[in-house]
Amino acid sequence: MDEFASITHWTGRRQSAEWQRARGVLLGIGDDAAAVDITGASDGILGAKHMVLAVDTMVENVHFSSETMRDEDVGYKALAANVSDIAAMGGVPLHALVSVAVPKSYGPERMRRLYDGLYECAERYGVAVIGGDTTSSPDRLVISVTLTGTVEAGREVRRSGAKPGEGVFLTGAVGLSAAGLHLLLAEAGGGGAAGSAKQRLQAGDVEAGHVMPHAEAGYLELIQGQEQDGERETGQSRAALVAAHQRPSPSVRAGRLLLEHGCSSLNDVSDGVASEAWEIAEASGLRLVLRESSLPLNDALKEYGVDASLNPQEWMLYGGEDYVLLGTIAKDKLEEVRDVFREEGLPFFEIGETLEGPVGVELVRESAQSGDERNIPVAKRGYNHFG
Amino acid sequence: MDEFASITHWTGRRQSAEWQRARGVLLGIGDDAAAVDITGASDGILGAKHMVLAVDTMVENVHFSSETMRDEDVGYKALAANVSDIAAMGGVPLHALVSVAVPKSYGPERMRRLYDGLYECAERYGVAVIGGDTTSSPDRLVISVTLTGTVEAGREVRRSGAKPGEGVFLTGAVGLSAAGLHLLLAEAGGGGAAGSAKQRLQAGDVEAGHVMPHAEAGYLELIQGQEQDGERETGQSRAALVAAHQRPSPSVRAGRLLLEHGCSSLNDVSDGVASEAWEIAEASGLRLVLRESSLPLNDALKEYGVDASLNPQEWMLYGGEDYVLLGTIAKDKLEEVRDVFREEGLPFFEIGETLEGPVGVELVRESAQSGDERNIPVAKRGYNHFG
Repeated sequence: MDEFASITHWTGRRQSAEWQRARGVLLGIGDDAAAVDITGASDGILGAKHMVLAVDTMVENVHFSSETMRDEDVGYKALAANVSDIAAMGGVPLHALVSVAVPKSYGPERMRRLYDGLYECAERYGVAVIGGDTTSSPDRLVISVTLTGTVEAGREVRRSGAKPGEGVFLTGAVGLSAAGLHLLLAEAGGGGAAGSAKQRLQAGDVEAGHVMPHAEAGYLELIQGQEQDGERETGQSRAALVAAHQRPSPSVRAGRLLLEHGCSSLNDVSDGVASEAWEIAEASGLRLVLRESSLPLNDALKEYGVDASLNPQEWMLYGGEDYVLLGTIAKDKLEEVRDVFREEGLPFFEIGETLEGPVGVELVRESAQSGDERNIPVAKRGYNHFG
Repeated sequence: MDEFASITHWTGRRQSAEWQRARGVLLGIGDDAAAVDITGASDGILGAKHMVLAVDTMVENVHFSSETMRDEDVGYKALAANVSDIAAMGGVPLHALVSVAVPKSYGPERMRRLYDGLYECAERYGVAVIGGDTTSSPDRLVISVTLTGTVEAGREVRRSGAKPGEGVFLTGAVGLSAAGLHLLLAEAGGGGAAGSAKQRLQAGDVEAGHVMPHAEAGYLELIQGQEQDGERETGQSRAALVAAHQRPSPSVRAGRLLLEHGCSSLNDVSDGVASEAWEIAEASGLRLVLRESSLPLNDALKEYGVDASLNPQEWMLYGGEDYVLLGTIAKDKLEEVRDVFREEGLPFFEIGETLEGPVGVELVRESAQSGDERNIPVAKRGYNHFG
């Protein structure tokens, strides 16, 4: 199959011309460049709006492996990571360009599945895929997605807008993605605390570090959780962790609501709460103080932590890839926002406050015995690609 | 160096805030996404224009190696390839996002040099670098650049606009990049017809296929061409081929002139004249007939072909990465365009014409003896990443 035939096989007839036109697309995949009308000439896509742009790259065996992600998941997550960046500006995602470097081991059907997942995410968030680039890669898949979006002129929510005395919030649970990854790797390795006996058996012939053709052994079982009654609940908990890792749900709607209600800063949790909190602290020149007892400890996470004899707080603070939003907002707006989120059925966790510098991030820990509180510094680390 | 420090080291203080503001940049490198004002609120950047978008990826040891490209060249060319895509729409390049997957072998200084080249290209074409992504890569560098641009609403020049009975043109010489690559590889291998005795000696301890730290051995000598009088000319010719490969000059100005004068189709020569001609033929549903004697045979190319005992036509038709424009225009506009290009000192080669289908590309060859002409089919091939 030549390059054009491949692209058609992966992308052809996925989004109708009409659907794309409603998103300002004049010329999509297949020319030197895509062309879009964003001046609002037709239906006011841009009008008095600004454009926001983000790019995110996933490298095989760095960000994913066949042990941890099916091909569909890779495509889905590559776009979702960008959607999350646009959400963190308070924006609405619009146009995507997809660049893939493809090794021989990815035949037409694997790439087709990858695009299945990517288009599934595109449909969910209303994103028009308008172009891209395909090249060969000697050994590993590299997928790079660029996403544009729009935001009301002058309203884009930056990292640098937090002020002292505001509330700090999260728009969803954190740590699940990292725990899901831990679980998937433990299963693939066949050992650790992970997996039922059956799951371990299914993954049993796979050595740690060896890449399975697909992560389906164990995975489907896990999603379905259809063993005995006693195991169903565990299966469901674990499925939630795996889903958080493989199919993140960026907080686009939450970002829009937060922009409307005047939140002062936003960051998406790609590298972990600690790392994102530090970014806001540094960009805004203040201190973020998080309350340990307010951090949203998800049941599935807690349960898996117990099983694996690991402290889930490590995943919550330093795990990353949760793709929820961490942000700040004036305290007098909190009640209003709390109500709106409740009405829309969206999670909203108040986890701390901002204080005058020195710049930093702290965690307030309350002693269970004495009720005394002490502030623990939160390390400025996360998943660092250059560490 | 952590990720932020690295990014600052590579990109910091390269383009002033003022320079970026003049290009509509509201928020550049350092947040979740970049933000731009392209609605023309400030200085009419977009106004009644459309946006065009392209992405291009270069993979180490697929598109380049240390034998053939210095780090600066990699950065320069990664952006230039995209500039060429925007030129092929008749557009003006505007904003770039740069995503790099970086192996350990690329330390801060190598990456800095890569960005030196990238920013050199950005300055040359007025491109604001507004964002990107950095990840680690286990083994090879992958650089993916996304570029936006603007074009007058409804005027973007597509592949599909050619009509029968038009002239076919090129905006520059072709085949030089492929010949330059051949020369660089031959030199790095220390054999072949390439290189003076001294150049061969400089590259002599490098085995074919082995990657040199930099392509500087032989290269600088080549650029300078400062040996004896007899060798100077050869050195200059070869330098032209090497420069064509390492530092392509996309035809942005030519694309703008062609749009103004109503050319009907454009393609940039990234995969070779044959491949690009086939794309126009298929998209427009007609036949492109190129005249062999009109193909611009550059002196440096001719000379190197003789030295290497290779037919330069192979490079001209199937070489690729020349990043000039191939296009079509009504014959009654040719004289006007010819004059404008001459006035501006830009090359313009009329190389054939379009005819009613069947869809295809042919080469008219004239017999030197008899003067008889015959039409040879031009194969639909080029550098195919999936061949």
